[in-house]
Amino acid sequence: MKISGLLTSAGINIGLCVLFLSLYSVLRKQPANVRVYFGRRIAQEHNRLREAFILERFVPSTGWIVKALQCTEEEILAAAGLDAVVFNRILVFSIRIFSLAALLCVFGILPLNYFGQDIHHVRIPSESLDIFTIGNVEVRSRWLWVHCVALYIISGVACILLYLEYKHIARLRLRHLTCAMPNPSHFTVLVRGIPKATKESCSNAVDDFFTKYHASSYLFHQVVYKVGKVQKIMTGAKRAYKKFKHFTDATVDQSCKAISYRCCLCGASSNSFQLLPTGLEQNQGKSDLQDSSFKLDDQECAAAFVYFRTRYAALVASEILQTSNPMKWVTDLAPEPDDVYWSNLWLPYKQLWIRRIATLLGSIVFMFLFLIPVTFIQGLSQLEQLQQKLPFLKGILEKRYMSQLVTGYLPSVILQIFLYTVAPIMILFSTLEGPISHSERKRSACCKVLYFTVWNVFFVNVLSGTVISQLNVLSSPKDIPVQLAKAIPGQATFFITYVLTSGWASLSSEVMQLFGLIWNFLRKYILRMREDTEFVPSFPYHTEVPKVMLFGLLGFTCSVLAPLILPFLLVYFFLGYVVYRNQLLNVYRTRYDTGGLYWPIAHNTVIFSLVLTQIICLGVFGLKESPVAAGFTVPLIILTLLFNQYCRNRLLPLFKTSPAQDLIDMDREDERSGRMDEIHRRLHSAYCQFHDSEDVSLEKIQIVGRDEDQGCSSGKSNGKETCEEEPKVELSHPTLNGLPVSRLRHAVRSITFLVRLQKRGLSE
Amino acid sequence: MKISGLLTSAGINIGLCVLFLSLYSVLRKQPANVRVYFGRRIAQEHNRLREAFILERFVPSTGWIVKALQCTEEEILAAAGLDAVVFNRILVFSIRIFSLAALLCVFGILPLNYFGQDIHHVRIPSESLDIFTIGNVEVRSRWLWVHCVALYIISGVACILLYLEYKHIARLRLRHLTCAMPNPSHFTVLVRGIPKATKESCSNAVDDFFTKYHASSYLFHQVVYKVGKVQKIMTGAKRAYKKFKHFTDATVDQSCKAISYRCCLCGASSNSFQLLPTGLEQNQGKSDLQDSSFKLDDQECAAAFVYFRTRYAALVASEILQTSNPMKWVTDLAPEPDDVYWSNLWLPYKQLWIRRIATLLGSIVFMFLFLIPVTFIQGLSQLEQLQQKLPFLKGILEKRYMSQLVTGYLPSVILQIFLYTVAPIMILFSTLEGPISHSERKRSACCKVLYFTVWNVFFVNVLSGTVISQLNVLSSPKDIPVQLAKAIPGQATFFITYVLTSGWASLSSEVMQLFGLIWNFLRKYILRMREDTEFVPSFPYHTEVPKVMLFGLLGFTCSVLAPLILPFLLVYFFLGYVVYRNQLLNVYRTRYDTGGLYWPIAHNTVIFSLVLTQIICLGVFGLKESPVAAGFTVPLIILTLLFNQYCRNRLLPLFKTSPAQDLIDMDREDERSGRMDEIHRRLHSAYCQFHDSEDVSLEKIQIVGRDEDQGCSSGKSNGKETCEEEPKVELSHPTLNGLPVSRLRHAVRSITFLVRLQKRGLSE
Repeated sequence: MKISGLLTSAGINIGLCVLFLSLYSVLRKQPANVRVYFGRRIAQEHNRLREAFILERFVPSTGWIVKALQCTEEEILAAAGLDAVVFNRILVFSIRIFSLAALLCVFGILPLNYFGQDIHHVRIPSESLDIFTIGNVEVRSRWLWVHCVALYIISGVACILLYLEYKHIARLRLRHLTCAMPNPSHFTVLVRGIPKATKESCSNAVDDFFTKYHASSYLFHQVVYKVGKVQKIMTGAKRAYKKFKHFTDATVDQSCKAISYRCCLCGASSNSFQLLPTGLEQNQGKSDLQDSSFKLDDQECAAAFVYFRTRYAALVASEILQTSNPMKWVTDLAPEPDDVYWSNLWLPYKQLWIRRIATLLGSIVFMFLFLIPVTFIQGLSQLEQLQQKLPFLKGILEKRYMSQLVTGYLPSVILQIFLYTVAPIMILFSTLEGPISHSERKRSACCKVLYFTVWNVFFVNVLSGTVISQLNVLSSPKDIPVQLAKAIPGQATFFITYVLTSGWASLSSEVMQLFGLIWNFLRKYILRMREDTEFVPSFPYHTEVPKVMLFGLLGFTCSVLAPLILPFLLVYFFLGYVVYRNQLLNVYRTRYDTGGLYWPIAHNTVIFSLVLTQIICLGVFGLKESPVAAGFTVPLIILTLLFNQYCRNRLLPLFKTSPAQDLIDMDREDERSGRMDEIHRRLHSAYCQFHDSEDVSLEKIQIVGRDEDQGCSSGKSNGKETCEEEPKVELSHPTLNGLPVSRLRHAVRSITFLVRLQKRGLSE
Repeated sequence: MKISGLLTSAGINIGLCVLFLSLYSVLRKQPANVRVYFGRRIAQEHNRLREAFILERFVPSTGWIVKALQCTEEEILAAAGLDAVVFNRILVFSIRIFSLAALLCVFGILPLNYFGQDIHHVRIPSESLDIFTIGNVEVRSRWLWVHCVALYIISGVACILLYLEYKHIARLRLRHLTCAMPNPSHFTVLVRGIPKATKESCSNAVDDFFTKYHASSYLFHQVVYKVGKVQKIMTGAKRAYKKFKHFTDATVDQSCKAISYRCCLCGASSNSFQLLPTGLEQNQGKSDLQDSSFKLDDQECAAAFVYFRTRYAALVASEILQTSNPMKWVTDLAPEPDDVYWSNLWLPYKQLWIRRIATLLGSIVFMFLFLIPVTFIQGLSQLEQLQQKLPFLKGILEKRYMSQLVTGYLPSVILQIFLYTVAPIMILFSTLEGPISHSERKRSACCKVLYFTVWNVFFVNVLSGTVISQLNVLSSPKDIPVQLAKAIPGQATFFITYVLTSGWASLSSEVMQLFGLIWNFLRKYILRMREDTEFVPSFPYHTEVPKVMLFGLLGFTCSVLAPLILPFLLVYFFLGYVVYRNQLLNVYRTRYDTGGLYWPIAHNTVIFSLVLTQIICLGVFGLKESPVAAGFTVPLIILTLLFNQYCRNRLLPLFKTSPAQDLIDMDREDERSGRMDEIHRRLHSAYCQFHDSEDVSLEKIQIVGRDEDQGCSSGKSNGKETCEEEPKVELSHPTLNGLPVSRLRHAVRSITFLVRLQKRGLSE
């Protein structure tokens, strides 16, 4: 590819970018699109835009860029959470290091490469891009030390910046932990692998265990039931059928009115239960059938939220090995209420390790099956090969602009389309893995997509031209530095076009929100659906973090070898900085947050990129027969790895657990100010399993256990499993009858469902 | 090598073994050697043997074998600790699995191999050993499925046995934890990385921190001072010099009598301090100089033992991240008092990760430098090569027995001698790594020696003939199965002789205790030294565990491919079982115990051996072009790895931490029975830093802190750093003068030292 080809490609992309951004600046001012471009604002801040028709609305403007640049880190933190700040810092880090790299390499190394060999230079636009890479430097050149020094400077500055960012984010994470509003997840532990006791119910088992071993700090607990979407309907109907059979000899009261009690019975009829004998003694004597069906249900329970008196106690309970069987009574700190992935909670704990291995194998297989389209794409970029295989295209391809388009643009676009399928598949894999929170699922998918992207976009593209067709890469690890050293400068062209198409274009489409725009249009004007203020997407970290990290990897590996990529990359990062800040502030809504856990991923990727760059440079210096430069690169690799190890020791533990000191200080502060009781009270309604799929507001479901503050000890008496704030009133109510309220509700709903079915059957 | 050569080698070794064992059975009955052969008995059980001169003493007997076989696991546990039981179980596991393997392979596979090709068989003694390996089976033989089935049976049974052993040892470990006498290490946490406060002393910092954050369970603490062997003398002398200068204007009382106080002052004179102004107020006013010197000393402290009220509290404190800086206030459960490696405790915590990496690199370099003698040895076993290189030996080497000796015996002996240097070097590396306990140091050395042995004895020997000379192994991991498949059957001869020489002979020398015997003789009859009942060596797990594991690896890899090794190996394991049990019961003394931590190492090694065997078999089946057998081997590898993962999830956590449930139950039991106060009292004298290097019995040094039970709160008042059981009597003594007792002792000793130096100077 020649400079002119590159410029064509750049021209197309710059044009597209300007077009899209101008279009965006107009579209965002249209009141009809306000839900697309200001989803977060409307959902969280309840802002309204004026709807006046003025000319201003149709003139492109740059105000949004200024706004995006002006907002401070505090504002991002408040609006979009810690993860958004981490993502922002990744971009800031990239801009800083690649500004330096661009300065160093474009002014220091590019001329060296260009004049590296004593050849006749043609006009620059007709120059091949290879002239600007290290491939053009003579073997045993005495200027290779400049490359080595540049590598040292880039690696050193990158490490310093990384360390500062790591420390900054660790501090933010601590502040996020300590300064936030009292968070129920800090007081809560998710217990899985609850052993099945034959005699007592699951809830009692949890209660007994924690009363016995964590008596001083245990508050109460809440059992999580095995209810997948389908399973819920099935078991509900089954149970209802059993109950129905049981009730046949009694007269069913037909006047089923929906009476709302304070606890959990809202919306469900309860009069139908007046027929059951009241009083606990009588009930115990006669309810054999119910007991057995309930026991079956109890054995199904697989997890429970256990609430503790202090944050420190919850932390301790979550970190300690509870019993001599590490697969039973497994404790983890609970995710935040909005973050809980309910349908995974009831997965049996002992399945999880198999699931994890299976999805790992699945992702690896997927990674390698993906090679097929990628190698095909690679074929497209090699024009001669394409002409050989599809001879009828020869006429078209020989046109100048056409060939430039095909070599410079098409391969990345096709790759891009294929890559769109990756994120959903990886999310699926991560779901199957069984994470307990949405954020963990997304983070796990992020890692998978990252590995995938680095392997399939970087390595396969680098190696496919030379080696991958014979699949020999794996068989010669010693040769890999040399292979990479040969391939990288050659593939720099592809990477530059990749930055232009995949990078710039994806940013434009991100800011435009094409899918959202079309869907909004369809819904509003074709389908005429009611506006849904609730549905605002959350930021797709699992696709955007890997994307940015991949461009970082390209930047590092090409920086010293083929510095021509750096200006384009820098434009990408600047544009990304503006666009992503704008999107985080206006478009996406933060429902859950990992608390900055994306940073260790980014850190590791940057370290990987640095070490890979150094290894490739080692290979290149070896090829160029410069023992001095190669010799000086080896200690650099060791120093980078040592730096990484230091960060792992010094900062990584803060991203895995919380320091006891801060938690204890927070607990004391809350106790001193008297807020603790209020926090404990609020814990009762913090986690709610049936909350999102039901139309009734169920604030408290099956809150069972020991809460001395409120004198509620219903969890201890067998069969009584409901704990209300005013327990006496509720428990003495005849219709409750000592049965778990949620089950009553289930049964009632199933009965009404069956009655409706019967009615329908009669009417037909 | 031919069968006759093998028989020669076996004959020599059997003869040597019988000779040594008979000699042992005689020597052990001699009263002069009682310290060599019954060290543990004498030191721990205070047994005495009758010294009558009877003929019986000079007749070889087998009674000791019967005794070694008869003793139960309980007796071994009581006599030699859990590690000994683990070692015993490793041997039992090896005997079981290799009995099965020998049965299967000798009767099932050996005939198949022998008649594998339709060739003319000569007399068996003249047959080459290769005839008995899988190398003799025809390509595309229809009998290869027998090998595959045998591999399945061996792998399956090995996994089942491994699981049973793992579970058994986990149960023993739990029982060891719960049934043992109250262990001070359960109540103690070692704190490192104590931040240097400029104003307050290190001891106060520890006290403040734990009083603030672990108030409910913190008892008191004990500071560990920076005292290496040399440093101790140096700082002592320096401090004394300063004190001496300070005292010059006062008359020094020359009548320095050694008066023993109850606390720490035993053996040290204290009258010389009567000259200092008494009373705390006066002292605080004048002792600026001392204070500054003390502060300097306090800043040097790097670690502290912190004692807790319950086991559970200590566990919690050791597992939780204390502060937001993971390099400060690092807490670990303390090792047992006898196990503490004092001279490593004061290493700055932030150095440790660098030390770990440095020793890792050091061991790797050592591993590869060791290649040089090993390749030389390998050359020796190839007779033709030797004859080419050293032509003057040709005459000697052409003699039949000579050549058999050289090929069958010499290489292993030389290798053996070289291998003797490995253990001390690895122990040195492990010491430099900075472990806090003797047992951890030995376990770390065990891992290093294991990696070393497996690499240098197994891989290098297997690959040296074919590949290692070009150092190409590392460059082609895909070819390794094929390379191994080619090499293993060929190297079976070497491994058989290795079992004979290194295995059998080392057992004989182990039981004979040659070094001990000679040293005992020298000491008794030549040097005429006093008998030292205290010095009894502890069992060298770091050399014996890798040895046994290596033979296991040889057994697994050769089992299906070259089954002739199995009978020899089985004899080794039987002999080892008898010998090691005898040695554990009689010779070695258990000073410290890892609590069964050698088992995970053994487990991992066996899994590694199994997977390696399966990979090699995969290679062999591939070479023999049997797709069915090769195809069936792949799921076996996956199943083995899954089994390993299951064990890691199910059982490994028990070897890393203690379950809270058991600790809490123990705490409650102790509290109920009223033993807790007694335990807390005994904690005061549990850990003693200067205990082994001083001739005085210092039971309590610098026990500082908050102990409500005893009303001792001296740690809080600045300057007073001693806490005795009867604090008022001791602290009010004028000579103590509010200064830390250990420092007074130091100072006093240094002064007497200086006085002696002066006297010597005057007399000369």
